[in-house]
Amino acid sequence: MERKRISPNSIGIVGLGLIGGSLGLDLQALGYEVHGLVHRRSTAEKAQERKLAQVISLDPTILADCELIILALPLDQLLQPSEALINALPTSAVITDVGSVKEPVLKIWQGLHQNFVASHPMAGTNESGVEAGREGLFKQRPWVATPDAKTNKDALRMVSQIAIDLGAEWIETESKRHDQAVALISHLPVLVSAALLKTLGNEENPAMISLAKQLASSGFADTTRIGGGNPNLGLAMARNNTAAIINALKSYQKNLNDFEKALLTKDWSQVKFELEQTKQLRPKFLKNDS
Amino acid sequence: MERKRISPNSIGIVGLGLIGGSLGLDLQALGYEVHGLVHRRSTAEKAQERKLAQVISLDPTILADCELIILALPLDQLLQPSEALINALPTSAVITDVGSVKEPVLKIWQGLHQNFVASHPMAGTNESGVEAGREGLFKQRPWVATPDAKTNKDALRMVSQIAIDLGAEWIETESKRHDQAVALISHLPVLVSAALLKTLGNEENPAMISLAKQLASSGFADTTRIGGGNPNLGLAMARNNTAAIINALKSYQKNLNDFEKALLTKDWSQVKFELEQTKQLRPKFLKNDS
Repeated sequence: MERKRISPNSIGIVGLGLIGGSLGLDLQALGYEVHGLVHRRSTAEKAQERKLAQVISLDPTILADCELIILALPLDQLLQPSEALINALPTSAVITDVGSVKEPVLKIWQGLHQNFVASHPMAGTNESGVEAGREGLFKQRPWVATPDAKTNKDALRMVSQIAIDLGAEWIETESKRHDQAVALISHLPVLVSAALLKTLGNEENPAMISLAKQLASSGFADTTRIGGGNPNLGLAMARNNTAAIINALKSYQKNLNDFEKALLTKDWSQVKFELEQTKQLRPKFLKNDS
Repeated sequence: MERKRISPNSIGIVGLGLIGGSLGLDLQALGYEVHGLVHRRSTAEKAQERKLAQVISLDPTILADCELIILALPLDQLLQPSEALINALPTSAVITDVGSVKEPVLKIWQGLHQNFVASHPMAGTNESGVEAGREGLFKQRPWVATPDAKTNKDALRMVSQIAIDLGAEWIETESKRHDQAVALISHLPVLVSAALLKTLGNEENPAMISLAKQLASSGFADTTRIGGGNPNLGLAMARNNTAAIINALKSYQKNLNDFEKALLTKDWSQVKFELEQTKQLRPKFLKNDS
């Protein structure tokens, strides 16, 4: 039995930063009428120049005729939506978001709209802002939805169809499990990497700093990349996924203490065993060993 | 006053793995007669096929006429050299090594040869063995020497000339400072990265493992790259630079505990401050923000 395809005629995007702007470009290319709501006049002008949507405005009423509205807002704004935004969302529309933490988003937004679908397209670059959006950002990237028993099935189907049309890999899981998984593979690594940079930063001898800089290689560059990234993203993760991150951090600290103990006791067979294990573990968590 | 250029006529390389093989290819291209000493017949055959040196043998006497001999051995073998190797090194030759830790190497080898120059070309790939050597490996990479008061100046000059001819950036520093710097920018990151992989490996719920695998992105790939690398390299570092690594690890653990404390007390201004600092720190330790 073939399912009826539920396609929206026009799509609203709230926020035209990296994610919102990229959505705007791709959705227009797919033939949708896209309405972009932004906060500042300067953003609207730049978004206009970059043609991130057909209609761009600071006026929430441009969302009135949209059948799907994607809240592409930073997590903090998503969790504290303005009255004006809430009132501008048509009751019959499907609403989804792009937040990187799902339990608190689902909790708040399910109370605000009957057709809310919590989702998280896991695509990104180091860029942010109205200049950052680019075509094809979601291709072959995971797009996770975290529906629960209250989620409207048709609304979920509409969001999944759009994600798949954008080339993303659609995944459904529980919000709590999503948040634990991203704590492990995304949020914990930010802290681990940042603490490494801070260890170099603690060094006070200028000769040592200069030597470390001369010797730092691609391995150091790789390990510190996400710890030297956007502080606001890191802060939003820490703030909104605190419990899961603390759990992951405790497990991590134990593993690091085990390494320290092996070094202190010169237990080389243990060090070797652990490094052999981690070499085998890595490909298990990466689709392509990049 | 122009310095007399001291060029060796023939160069011996002990070990034709990644570093030794790459040296062999580049030094032949520079016009040197290269003699490669290897340990196994199968290695000799493959090295012959790959033309890693003009003369390749299991017999240490091929080093007899070499004016410069580069010990391109794994750190463990370098620190426990065989009698046969020691006896095969001509007294008048200049001897250098490529080991990634310098204090123990300098200590042992200065007692074994009057013209020993401790050095560390910081070039590498994930490959190892006789198939790994490739042309141009040392170009624009640091090549650190750690001479002390006992180091023969002419010997040091010969090694520096070769390193520069190979396209490397020559750096001289104290052995202790070198070992502290590589503990911070190279050895500590291996443990930090490995402990992150182990944290994922501790996860027992198969649904969580599968989800984490689906969601792992380039950030996770980057942060875990060196922790999933060659276990023997990691072990050699741990074993031979233990004290400096433990110091670096203690400083790292303190920084991580500070992050944990900020999360536990929900001190978001502190988290934000730290992440802003680390964002500013990263470019200070990288020549090119790669």
